[in-house]
Amino acid sequence: MCIPRRDSMSVKVGNLIIGGNQPISVQSMTKTDTRDVPATVYQIKQLEDAGCSIVRVAVPDISAAKCLGQIRSQINIPLVADIHFDYRLAIEAIHQGVDKLRLNPGNIKDTEKVSLICYEAKKFNIPIRIGVNSGSVDRKRFHEITPQALVDSAMEHIRLLEECDFTDIIVSLKASNIPLTIESYKLMSGMVTYPFHIGITEAGPIRTGSIRSGVGIGILLSMGLGDTVRVSLTADPVEEVYTAYEILQSLNLRRHGVQLVSCPTCGRTEVDLQKIVYSLEDKLRIIKKPLCVAVMGCVVNGPGEASEADIGVACGKGVGLLFKKGMPLYKVPQERIVDVLMEEIEKM
Amino acid sequence: MCIPRRDSMSVKVGNLIIGGNQPISVQSMTKTDTRDVPATVYQIKQLEDAGCSIVRVAVPDISAAKCLGQIRSQINIPLVADIHFDYRLAIEAIHQGVDKLRLNPGNIKDTEKVSLICYEAKKFNIPIRIGVNSGSVDRKRFHEITPQALVDSAMEHIRLLEECDFTDIIVSLKASNIPLTIESYKLMSGMVTYPFHIGITEAGPIRTGSIRSGVGIGILLSMGLGDTVRVSLTADPVEEVYTAYEILQSLNLRRHGVQLVSCPTCGRTEVDLQKIVYSLEDKLRIIKKPLCVAVMGCVVNGPGEASEADIGVACGKGVGLLFKKGMPLYKVPQERIVDVLMEEIEKM
Repeated sequence: MCIPRRDSMSVKVGNLIIGGNQPISVQSMTKTDTRDVPATVYQIKQLEDAGCSIVRVAVPDISAAKCLGQIRSQINIPLVADIHFDYRLAIEAIHQGVDKLRLNPGNIKDTEKVSLICYEAKKFNIPIRIGVNSGSVDRKRFHEITPQALVDSAMEHIRLLEECDFTDIIVSLKASNIPLTIESYKLMSGMVTYPFHIGITEAGPIRTGSIRSGVGIGILLSMGLGDTVRVSLTADPVEEVYTAYEILQSLNLRRHGVQLVSCPTCGRTEVDLQKIVYSLEDKLRIIKKPLCVAVMGCVVNGPGEASEADIGVACGKGVGLLFKKGMPLYKVPQERIVDVLMEEIEKM
Repeated sequence: MCIPRRDSMSVKVGNLIIGGNQPISVQSMTKTDTRDVPATVYQIKQLEDAGCSIVRVAVPDISAAKCLGQIRSQINIPLVADIHFDYRLAIEAIHQGVDKLRLNPGNIKDTEKVSLICYEAKKFNIPIRIGVNSGSVDRKRFHEITPQALVDSAMEHIRLLEECDFTDIIVSLKASNIPLTIESYKLMSGMVTYPFHIGITEAGPIRTGSIRSGVGIGILLSMGLGDTVRVSLTADPVEEVYTAYEILQSLNLRRHGVQLVSCPTCGRTEVDLQKIVYSLEDKLRIIKKPLCVAVMGCVVNGPGEASEADIGVACGKGVGLLFKKGMPLYKVPQERIVDVLMEEIEKM
């Protein structure tokens, strides 16, 4: 499956390019109080370790805005300031050295203030993401939340920037409703070439939120839409990054760490496969090298799947037969499978 | 988003119809030793409670086959026998009263034996699912595992049945590789009208396997493909059923229990939203009524999302404002939010 990607403009965010056929980047957002600089920096460092490429922080007030420079100076990935309603927060964030703003200019209400933001952003090469969200579309103007309403709302925000001759724009159109999200991006893709930030907003707790994100983001990506991904989970933001990479990896759009293939087990299984798989999954999380590891429970699909992986094991009664790059290696008793696989992986 | 579904034939499996524009059914497979009848029946009962519509059991040998009647008599959903290589297991399973076979006739090797299976299956109105799996495609014949190889392999199995004038067929084409799976079903959809059983095989442990299933099954469903879904996870099979419903629900293809919308939280959140959400998620699992419940952490999207849900709460500093069907109800202190939401949900 070769997915033809939508042609989008390139937008530079710090040292990273979003759009223009660059690899799809993964981003997240801190959940700390932005004014608590050590806690915020610590969380961003964890996100960096997990492979996060851009991080956003909420800027609810001027004291949060005044912390952005300190945060920026202690991290290695581009910093995005999430701002609503107050133009002064945007100006302060720009002066603090952030790499991007997320801001809906329609919420600023005053075109002079919008023009001031554009002037400062342009001076410092700071792009702006317009992030339309079904939960915050103006209900007085758009009675029903349809794809057209989300797109019209985004187009109004976009025009406010374009009127200031500002085109360094990224767009997102998020809803917790997945079909609505998909239709909105599809509609928008015919109207602008700005890069798309994609995600399913308020997807929920980790388990169901990851599934819903897989469905929604997966379908968008399969349509060639999306230049940067943010998974939203009610959970540690590191989980958002893992989920995003799992989605991208499953469609061969990025390679990141180990992809663990493992069989569901059935009445044929004669080892404690769950124990092996979960113990292995824990240990594999730190491996950064892109590898496919297969753990299979029986002879029906086992050898076939195991031999397609970079390394794999096909289990029989109490033992596993190791495969590496399609070649059978040797047999291992079940209690040694995890250790032996890890040893072989570390050699690779 | 209205998804036009592929036209497929109807196939009757016990009291259930797969295909022909019937609701997409959810199935799973037991992980117990099939010969342990009480353990197998217990697991099937748990699956029934979770909303599973069809259950499959492995039949590795004749003693497992001889337990099928006992299992069948104690459960309420159609029973499928998963059989490889040995035609006698298929004949025994049919005589034990199973509702469907999963069997690849090409693996039986002998056309007379295949014809005997078809004769018996037709006599008892038992459909057969041909389940081609990338791990078990004949490598001597198909050197490279491509969509065409999976489809050709399936077509060979299908022809063996059709030559016996047997057309009560369901088809699956599974791979752990998601783009390969999608391309295979897409190719197959132009060739036969038999219903499709869809899934991503060997998707992995619960966390990554659910994401990968969301992506793969979600994309297939968005293309209108799929009449019955099986999620494969290295986990309790009940989790497979929950995942399948979450996927179907996220695309409005089934409604099943509560959809919990919750915000990811950020530097604006002033309540312990994670605690509220996870405590609520636990309590909501038993609610069968299809409802949308939203738990939002701040004023930016909170009231908007909460008012779109059947019931929702938008939190501020230490309190939540309850919404029901779009109308604000009353404020609740944060420590009472879960209990009050549950009370209101039980009233609905």
